[in-house]
Amino acid sequence: MSSHPKPEPVGDVVGASVPKPDAREKVTGRAVYTDDLRVPGMLHGVLLGSPHAHARILSYDTSLAKALPGVRAVLTAEDLPPVDIGAVIKDQPLLARGKVRYVGEPVAAVAAVDPTTARRALELIRVQYEVLPPVFDAEAALRPDAPVLHAPRGPGHPNAASHIRLIEGEPDGAWAKCDVIIEDVYETPAQQHIYLEPCSTLAEVDPDTGRITLHTSTQTAFRVQAITAEALAVPMSRIRVLVPRVGGAFGGKVESTNQPITAALALATGAPVKMTFSRTDDMTMMRSRHGARIHMRTGATRDGRILARQVRIYFDTGAYADDGPFVANIGSYFARGPYRIPHVDVECWCVYTNKLRAGAFRGFGNPQIHFASEVQVDRLAEALGMDPIELRLRNALETGEKWLGGAPVESGTLHACLERAREVSDWQRRRQRAPPAPGKRRGIGMAAVAHVSGLLGSSATVRINEDGSVNVSTGAVDTGQGSDTALAQVAAGALGVPLSQLHFSRPDTDTSPYDWCTGGTRTTFTVGHVITQACEQVREQLFEHASAMLQRPVQQLELRPGGHVGVRGEPGTSVSFGAISGYALYVAGGPILASARWLFPAWQLDTQRTHVEGLTSMGNGFFVFAAQVAEVEVDELTGHVEVLEAWSVHDVGRVINPAAAEGQIQGGFVQGLGYALTEELLWKEGHLLNPTMGGYKVPGALDVPRAIHSVLLEHPAGPGPFGAKGVAEVSLVGVAPAICNAIRHATGANIRRIPATGERVLRELLARETQGGH
Amino acid sequence: MSSHPKPEPVGDVVGASVPKPDAREKVTGRAVYTDDLRVPGMLHGVLLGSPHAHARILSYDTSLAKALPGVRAVLTAEDLPPVDIGAVIKDQPLLARGKVRYVGEPVAAVAAVDPTTARRALELIRVQYEVLPPVFDAEAALRPDAPVLHAPRGPGHPNAASHIRLIEGEPDGAWAKCDVIIEDVYETPAQQHIYLEPCSTLAEVDPDTGRITLHTSTQTAFRVQAITAEALAVPMSRIRVLVPRVGGAFGGKVESTNQPITAALALATGAPVKMTFSRTDDMTMMRSRHGARIHMRTGATRDGRILARQVRIYFDTGAYADDGPFVANIGSYFARGPYRIPHVDVECWCVYTNKLRAGAFRGFGNPQIHFASEVQVDRLAEALGMDPIELRLRNALETGEKWLGGAPVESGTLHACLERAREVSDWQRRRQRAPPAPGKRRGIGMAAVAHVSGLLGSSATVRINEDGSVNVSTGAVDTGQGSDTALAQVAAGALGVPLSQLHFSRPDTDTSPYDWCTGGTRTTFTVGHVITQACEQVREQLFEHASAMLQRPVQQLELRPGGHVGVRGEPGTSVSFGAISGYALYVAGGPILASARWLFPAWQLDTQRTHVEGLTSMGNGFFVFAAQVAEVEVDELTGHVEVLEAWSVHDVGRVINPAAAEGQIQGGFVQGLGYALTEELLWKEGHLLNPTMGGYKVPGALDVPRAIHSVLLEHPAGPGPFGAKGVAEVSLVGVAPAICNAIRHATGANIRRIPATGERVLRELLARETQGGH
Repeated sequence: MSSHPKPEPVGDVVGASVPKPDAREKVTGRAVYTDDLRVPGMLHGVLLGSPHAHARILSYDTSLAKALPGVRAVLTAEDLPPVDIGAVIKDQPLLARGKVRYVGEPVAAVAAVDPTTARRALELIRVQYEVLPPVFDAEAALRPDAPVLHAPRGPGHPNAASHIRLIEGEPDGAWAKCDVIIEDVYETPAQQHIYLEPCSTLAEVDPDTGRITLHTSTQTAFRVQAITAEALAVPMSRIRVLVPRVGGAFGGKVESTNQPITAALALATGAPVKMTFSRTDDMTMMRSRHGARIHMRTGATRDGRILARQVRIYFDTGAYADDGPFVANIGSYFARGPYRIPHVDVECWCVYTNKLRAGAFRGFGNPQIHFASEVQVDRLAEALGMDPIELRLRNALETGEKWLGGAPVESGTLHACLERAREVSDWQRRRQRAPPAPGKRRGIGMAAVAHVSGLLGSSATVRINEDGSVNVSTGAVDTGQGSDTALAQVAAGALGVPLSQLHFSRPDTDTSPYDWCTGGTRTTFTVGHVITQACEQVREQLFEHASAMLQRPVQQLELRPGGHVGVRGEPGTSVSFGAISGYALYVAGGPILASARWLFPAWQLDTQRTHVEGLTSMGNGFFVFAAQVAEVEVDELTGHVEVLEAWSVHDVGRVINPAAAEGQIQGGFVQGLGYALTEELLWKEGHLLNPTMGGYKVPGALDVPRAIHSVLLEHPAGPGPFGAKGVAEVSLVGVAPAICNAIRHATGANIRRIPATGERVLRELLARETQGGH
Repeated sequence: MSSHPKPEPVGDVVGASVPKPDAREKVTGRAVYTDDLRVPGMLHGVLLGSPHAHARILSYDTSLAKALPGVRAVLTAEDLPPVDIGAVIKDQPLLARGKVRYVGEPVAAVAAVDPTTARRALELIRVQYEVLPPVFDAEAALRPDAPVLHAPRGPGHPNAASHIRLIEGEPDGAWAKCDVIIEDVYETPAQQHIYLEPCSTLAEVDPDTGRITLHTSTQTAFRVQAITAEALAVPMSRIRVLVPRVGGAFGGKVESTNQPITAALALATGAPVKMTFSRTDDMTMMRSRHGARIHMRTGATRDGRILARQVRIYFDTGAYADDGPFVANIGSYFARGPYRIPHVDVECWCVYTNKLRAGAFRGFGNPQIHFASEVQVDRLAEALGMDPIELRLRNALETGEKWLGGAPVESGTLHACLERAREVSDWQRRRQRAPPAPGKRRGIGMAAVAHVSGLLGSSATVRINEDGSVNVSTGAVDTGQGSDTALAQVAAGALGVPLSQLHFSRPDTDTSPYDWCTGGTRTTFTVGHVITQACEQVREQLFEHASAMLQRPVQQLELRPGGHVGVRGEPGTSVSFGAISGYALYVAGGPILASARWLFPAWQLDTQRTHVEGLTSMGNGFFVFAAQVAEVEVDELTGHVEVLEAWSVHDVGRVINPAAAEGQIQGGFVQGLGYALTEELLWKEGHLLNPTMGGYKVPGALDVPRAIHSVLLEHPAGPGPFGAKGVAEVSLVGVAPAICNAIRHATGANIRRIPATGERVLRELLARETQGGH
């Protein structure tokens, strides 16, 4: 990565807390989201969910529903191409085909003139089922006699969507050399994304050409295009995807949501169809974070060198694999943590069960494994009588060391994050602090955090207009986090133009360059990279023309703030972008524009060093680091945990927009807080018990600590723009272990299962009293 | 140009008469034109026209109009930035400022809740004028004592918007060597474009950012963006232009129409504003073809060598220069015609008068000069006793010879066109044919035609989707002529994919690559060129990946129809575009896309050879040739001319879509027929007498000959796609002289002024009888 030169930004726009231009329209309610769209003749789509967790479909009768006045189409799997979709395993039909595999699985789709008629039609659809035995637990699903959800795809248990093994060193022999060994089983919940905007799609079909236009809430216009094309068996060129304002996504809108089925309804009716999920439909039918059970054992020498770790991970992917095998990859890769542990044995299963599918969610397998690892490392410190930060500093990987599997750590800044976290949180003093009041206990805990930034491919086009203003076009979706603003700043900084002279376009699959997805902590990093590459090509074109116009060699030229090319050392000699563009358009060269494209080079497996089985992809990315600290107060009577204050220290490489980065970090912390303390999908016999905002508790304003201190360290490195690194996911990853370590620090309760509800904290406190302390 | 390799198209889509995909929606009325757009809160804009041809504005009183309920804004020049616009001379305010210079010139603009209220408000606007003496004739306007329209811009008459002189050889001395000399004064009318769709714009303004979105009927999204930005003094990046279906343009929508003033109304009101002209507003306020008066003298030796020509051209540009100086350039360049005349003296004025501005119109100065030249060459043939085709063949330029000014003729195919025209029209037989009936006379005439193809810059982006389908994006506007279809065929042929797997996007200035304009016979030629260049880059990317995938060197690879890369000589070994794209997106390289950009290199003046003064630009382009033949029947009693049959022979280089090319040629012939026989704006004391479809006669179905035979010759050459050349304008250029030569052949009447109305033909017949024949 040292091959990426790091030019300094021109002007002062990079590093400025530029407000989001869409802030006002969102605050005033003027912003247009997909559900705000209305077109003449528009129908409304709804889906019928399965009442059974596992059943064979024997027959459909849609005649009554079709006969209801106002109903325009009733579709079942029989009306759709026999195509299954899926990012890794092609196992998901748009509507259940032959079988249902979870309660709520879409079985039929209706389009009608209004939502009420559509819902009424659902009640008139008759489906005959033969109920099959279900399985709800991932470990249980791997037993030989477990009910099987999908046809076997090869050797191994048919319920294993993936099975990974990573071994380094000689783990079996290493335990004997350990002075301290901690072993526990950790459990993490199926968390829901709870984006403010439930999934919504408006599909329009050109009656002459059959071309489909989708307006949809998504993280990726281009994947929606690809998946819809695949599902409906039409070429991608016949589908256009446009993305209105998006009200959050967090991984839940990486894969398709209701786009393909809405498009199918539009094709069936020849009319525009809008489908907007109710919150309950969204929670029941879309996806969640993978619930996980992790058996972990870690051993260290007395002087604090972590020697060995064994990990067994069960990711519950629900009824369909979705991104599960990729999540399992990340979970496995990160099972060693950001530490140089010489002997490691990781085994990971991604398992089908008869529940809602699990998929991508901010952190992507990493919050689960970080919870186990960082709680266990903390207990190891306790057992060794060491300060938790000290133990982590002693084992943290540094620049040039290898990650599990052999990928290089190119910018190993965990030490810097840990030291800064210790300093800003006043760690030493707060670790010693006395209880605040009778019945209340205070504690402070922390977690070291690592993640990757920069997955997969992107491209960008930059154009200089005739008047010297600039248009930048990418495929990146701003899901509300502000990437449009940050990426505009990147381009403005690369070319030295003010933001008022630059337009950054939202994606249109017809005309925008491809971007994979707003996910994987990659938008600022990866899309920012291709933008700087395209700007560099544009700069070369500008310099070539300016050289002819000013009669100076290119080597003497420089970009100047305000959109000028000047002669180095001659402040009075320059030519504006507008003049250069006029020259290019009317004298020589043609329009000034450039497209850049990039795919982060894949990690190379070091098979000399690591025994690897079952990885579905090698992955790629740039390691990023953080340290997170939480101070909590625990009510001894109720077990209720209040997070008082928090510190989140991140190496952002180079800050593009401090306010936006801090917003990401604070949002990540709060979502992590929900994961740690309250959020959990609860099922009973396959039925989701809490598919409402009343039953599923996300943190509210009163649950947020009085201060979440974001600390942005700048260690520019890697291909991100001006050395910037991503911050989107990493800000969530360490929150749960930091909070649980604080709970243990406050009370001694060893929280191994989150969310750490009052009930669970109390149970641990009671267990501890029964066992007479740890 | 021989540096442009000519790869053959892959597959059979190039050369096929693919139907336009938008044909059905247009025929069924479903197509959405700008005026079909409606958005919530939309206001309607109208303009107040000047009642005087020339007057000073003393004061405005808009208070009554503003007080009318429903009126949201009343603007005059005092409310606008003090900016004048214009392609060559910045002489046009959006609303008259200080002075009015023609009857109908916009003086004020109103936006109101409905069109009726808006029109009523116009009547309430009081403007005080001081009437000034007007001038209506171009030659009169150049007299020293003529009223002056604009402030002088330098030496020379202030009413001369441009003055050009081109001299080659020794014209003064050459006349003595001529055996025959013909001299006449020719006059051509101000023809109107009469696009089916009058000018229309919907302007929307983002209330938070002030960003302007224009939906408009135009030939060029990017020039509209530039001109509106200039007029309103905002950066181009703050303006987005989208182009719904366009109902014809023919040059009338090259420069701005009502876009800037509609945007100004939207900015003033903060609401969306739509302005759609009535036909009368459009005819009164927009622009026409330049009326011209041409004094021409041509001399030849007895054996048919044309030796000398003197030309004096007066282009009447009306009150504003608009594209007039460029039109004058073309008129001057083409004054020698496509003939090797060694001694030439051309002088050309583009002159302000107090009439509607004149600007671009299919042919762009060339129909005027071709009318004079081709009628005069025909008379020369007559005087020499030679067949008119024979005389032209003897003098036609061939490949490698120089145009007036020194530009090279790179593909001199006029001989081929003339010979083919002689053959297909059965020329010899029809020249001899007897009169059909008493009082009717028949004749056949022809014209040699030359034009240029390929002005100015363009760019294109081509993307391979994940499934191997293709998206092509350019800035080119399809004005109804079918360029979207032809350009899609170019891309499909360059890559070997079926059209069903390819999408060609309409322009969006936010995300599309720049294109200058759909004009200058350039869209298939120039945009087609950049598309093939972008496809070539994409092909290189495809081959590079395929080489890695197939383990073969790039040199052994070939494109195969259907979207495959195969190994040459091994029919069984290939890889699909989809597989290659998957490899690029997920293994190495990144998204497959490429942008190409181009500016036709400017012609180099040969100042050794040609004395040149006053050219506002050297121009550029690729010479294209045609021969047009018309057979007419003239009613001796009424002078009415009926065109019976026509032949239009074109070197199209390489035919992309025969049906579309024939459509262009037939449309051009009919528009030329109107120019020849019926179309003319008529003024009386500055007032346009016939600004309606009733008063201004365009050819109807009954006026069209029973057959217009389009003959497409293929002589691939030059940078156009696969050697294609343009056909859009050239199909109109020779029609008027061919028809008038046929009239003379039929009756002996020497038509020197068009349109050749019955009245004018009769007058010439009477004059001829009086003079006792020619």
